[in-house]
Amino acid sequence: MKLEVSSELTYTLQSAGTVILNIHALRTQKQTVLEESLTIDPYIKTEELPAEYGENRLIRFDVTDTDAITITYKALVDNFCVETDHENQVSTPVSQLPAAVLPYLHPSRYCQSDKLLRFASSKFASIENPFVKVVAVTDWIYENVQYISGSTDSQTSAYDTVTELAGVCRDFAHLGIAICRALSIPARYFAGYAYQLVPQDFHACFEAFIGNDWVLFDATRLAPLNGMVKISTGRDAADSAVANLFGGIQFNSSNVNCELREDALAPVYYDASQLRGLSYK
Amino acid sequence: MKLEVSSELTYTLQSAGTVILNIHALRTQKQTVLEESLTIDPYIKTEELPAEYGENRLIRFDVTDTDAITITYKALVDNFCVETDHENQVSTPVSQLPAAVLPYLHPSRYCQSDKLLRFASSKFASIENPFVKVVAVTDWIYENVQYISGSTDSQTSAYDTVTELAGVCRDFAHLGIAICRALSIPARYFAGYAYQLVPQDFHACFEAFIGNDWVLFDATRLAPLNGMVKISTGRDAADSAVANLFGGIQFNSSNVNCELREDALAPVYYDASQLRGLSYK
Amino acid sequence: MKLEVSSELTYTLQSAGTVILNIHALRTQKQTVLEESLTIDPYIKTEELPAEYGENRLIRFDVTDTDAITITYKALVDNFCVETDHENQVSTPVSQLPAAVLPYLHPSRYCQSDKLLRFASSKFASIENPFVKVVAVTDWIYENVQYISGSTDSQTSAYDTVTELAGVCRDFAHLGIAICRALSIPARYFAGYAYQLVPQDFHACFEAFIGNDWVLFDATRLAPLNGMVKISTGRDAADSAVANLFGGIQFNSSNVNCELREDALAPVYYDASQLRGLSYK
Amino acid sequence: MKLEVSSELTYTLQSAGTVILNIHALRTQKQTVLEESLTIDPYIKTEELPAEYGENRLIRFDVTDTDAITITYKALVDNFCVETDHENQVSTPVSQLPAAVLPYLHPSRYCQSDKLLRFASSKFASIENPFVKVVAVTDWIYENVQYISGSTDSQTSAYDTVTELAGVCRDFAHLGIAICRALSIPARYFAGYAYQLVPQDFHACFEAFIGNDWVLFDATRLAPLNGMVKISTGRDAADSAVANLFGGIQFNSSNVNCELREDALAPVYYDASQLRGLSYK
Repeated sequence: MKLEVSSELTYTLQSAGTVILNIHALRTQKQTVLEESLTIDPYIKTEELPAEYGENRLIRFDVTDTDAITITYKALVDNFCVETDHENQVSTPVSQLPAAVLPYLHPSRYCQSDKLLRFASSKFASIENPFVKVVAVTDWIYENVQYISGSTDSQTSAYDTVTELAGVCRDFAHLGIAICRALSIPARYFAGYAYQLVPQDFHACFEAFIGNDWVLFDATRLAPLNGMVKISTGRDAADSAVANLFGGIQFNSSNVNCELREDALAPVYYDASQLRGLSYK
Repeated sequence: MKLEVSSELTYTLQSAGTVILNIHALRTQKQTVLEESLTIDPYIKTEELPAEYGENRLIRFDVTDTDAITITYKALVDNFCVETDHENQVSTPVSQLPAAVLPYLHPSRYCQSDKLLRFASSKFASIENPFVKVVAVTDWIYENVQYISGSTDSQTSAYDTVTELAGVCRDFAHLGIAICRALSIPARYFAGYAYQLVPQDFHACFEAFIGNDWVLFDATRLAPLNGMVKISTGRDAADSAVANLFGGIQFNSSNVNCELREDALAPVYYDASQLRGLSYK
Repeated sequence: MKLEVSSELTYTLQSAGTVILNIHALRTQKQTVLEESLTIDPYIKTEELPAEYGENRLIRFDVTDTDAITITYKALVDNFCVETDHENQVSTPVSQLPAAVLPYLHPSRYCQSDKLLRFASSKFASIENPFVKVVAVTDWIYENVQYISGSTDSQTSAYDTVTELAGVCRDFAHLGIAICRALSIPARYFAGYAYQLVPQDFHACFEAFIGNDWVLFDATRLAPLNGMVKISTGRDAADSAVANLFGGIQFNSSNVNCELREDALAPVYYDASQLRGLSYK
Repeated sequence: MKLEVSSELTYTLQSAGTVILNIHALRTQKQTVLEESLTIDPYIKTEELPAEYGENRLIRFDVTDTDAITITYKALVDNFCVETDHENQVSTPVSQLPAAVLPYLHPSRYCQSDKLLRFASSKFASIENPFVKVVAVTDWIYENVQYISGSTDSQTSAYDTVTELAGVCRDFAHLGIAICRALSIPARYFAGYAYQLVPQDFHACFEAFIGNDWVLFDATRLAPLNGMVKISTGRDAADSAVANLFGGIQFNSSNVNCELREDALAPVYYDASQLRGLSYK
């Protein structure tokens, strides 16, 4: 499947600062970046962070002698997500989880799973199949949390959303992650471009570690699960912000797009009757 | 310097579960574990997590057919901390920080640096030398936060402590970390054994990344900075808990000890007049 | 119905201070205090606050030259609660509520109803009969919140309890109040002695304003609704604490009792099939 | 001093609802309302709540058959504030406070004084004169909290502001109240019109009970203390909101004005060298 993604971001400067940008399509075994360009106007030299940071493709640069910058990223991506069968899936006990996924059981800034233990347990612990369990988590979120643009801000966390029951994709993802962790299922934040998302914007979902795969879930149901281009993963939005800004730089506007360039897409949303998940490796 | 450390932990079982234990002395270039033993009574086979988890030496095991377990860890450690000179230290701009330390700028479960930006900036931004700055942070914490055993619990975070002004070593560390990150100084949690800590217990301090070193800081002033044995580091206590317990296992008691076996120790506490830090590599 | 209540409270002094005590049985039209005694050992002169404070019978006194005090209150109370029929009860619109009850719609320290609007509405708004609605609120709390002694502290609020799902009678009351207010039903805290409460202690319930009466509700189901002796009402525990302590006075112990002295008590708990409420005037 | 005040509020309707409005100038011994008019377009019959609610002049009305309403209030007020001398003011011990002011020592929704005890005590307890003490509280707020329009919302409380250090007049007032209560000084919210406030809007300050008077304080320093027209007082903004809205009514816009009609005003701001307070009776 070929997807063309683009994002245009503008920032204004009150004083010099540094930007760490998180908008590049990830390069993975299943996601090939065929063409790609990043331009900053006026021109600024950028650095792609080396692999010691992790697999996310962060771009770092200083901004000094200008009032405003416009960042334009474009990529043509060939990716596909793998279908994973969870028909007879059994839970992986903590004692058998790979060491590398254990940190995704820990509570994090926006996913205070330690505060949701009773809540998660009382609602979902009785479901045995872990895929069905996480689908139930996303169903609960979808049915109980209202998607309201502007209803939350950068400090809103899963602990707020579980009670206030309103938010945007980021909040839906945080709550899904927090509930999974409270159920001893490793879960992490997924930032990406999403085909057919209306209105177009960066999207946030989450991945739960089930049957040795990071399986994608999206409690918002706002875009097909098989039309995503992965940008990055992290413990929560603290790790996967679109941009981390240091110094006197302020976000001004964004304009995001994701279009299908080849192949038709038969949109996939999970369905309780079909225990098939999708995984972006 | 040779230190003999030990810890005895007891847990009771309501039902089967898994323990991930974080009490082993780290093996690093500067910290050699000369002798070491871990026994669990009754006997349980354990697994040391592989390096893909990170450098921390986590031990994982299942507990099933018993009412209670006693874990005994003993080690003889030869370590030394390196003195780092910060006389003319200048701040490292975010654009020049190694990629591997950038995650330690992000807010985390117990260190909500994003909520402390104005607080940290108004109090400490004017100090230029970053070592002097972090010493000032720890001085502020020491002078304003009361050390009161039992005043906080496992949910207490830096956001609470900065206002409620009471806590234990864990809370002092979280607040120090959160303030550093709010000042764009990477900081992480340090769990260890501490010589001359009274009463003996696991100790928590923090490390700030200054001049290309992780420099140790302890806002409690309860133990000499040069008498520590490092167990682990992490974003905060969520990563560096003494034990993560899953299933029906409950903490019962702990008994910790740290004694000097050779050499005398000239206790080091930082002093505004001597800009020398200590670093456990 | 005659109930004999008693409470013995001990406090220790680090320095002089003032106590405002809230343990006297209220004197109302339906609750007659037949006999009553308050002794403080060593002797301290006390003042009963005048009516300008409200109907609660607060006792105020200074403590100075002593290490510890023991307060003993005993009363023989003849009270009865009025049965209110809610068979065909309709909601009172806000526009017809008596002015005096309007403050009990406002959020308060421990009852942040403003944060529970969607939660309350999604769960309970469809129930038309307000008595049935508040019974449903208490049923939800009873079924979802675990009563665990010591699980919460004096800072715990309804916003915590609705997610953490554990607490004591005070927390059950706060959550009931917060949900009612979020549904535009005035609600207030009720502190009292409770017959057959095990173990004996001060009890907390709440009153909701339905059909022109303050109707009693108790989400804990730990004591019959018709065996209470009312001490005070207020917006929440901030208004109805057993004691407000100023200066260097610390709570040490309490010993509370409530026994039936005459008549048998046919214990009343609400029942969805019988739309009868109880009201302590 | 004659002040002419006006406010124009517009609301839109999604469905029928009730408004309780809190914009009328209070009628007190020292504040005479010479002329006054309230019009609602389209016309709606309103009710002024009786005195059992308290001294605040609340207006209640239902809104049904319309899309939007415009409320216009105008008043000509003759008021003066009384100067109170605090040169040799001593603290009133809790044991001698009038019963009616005791509730203003309790923590409330937006003023969690119970969480600020150590903070308040460490900063201000050493100041003996209670007027000087509260001036120091407002000075600390003024110097540490940035006034930033739009930085907070209706859920922001003193516990947030004391750390996040940004807010609007309402937040400045809540923090002042919370600190006073933590110091055992009764304090309450003051909503009013304010001459020379730029830009014109409803204003919030607070009153502290000192020397048997409710003395006005304003940590924002945005308007002279002697140019206010009092609308209402309450425990915090939960009691003194401009409007409480029930049902499907939403705030749209407000336009507020306060002008001097007679006499010149020599603006008063407190000054550490002149221990004179102002009190609106």
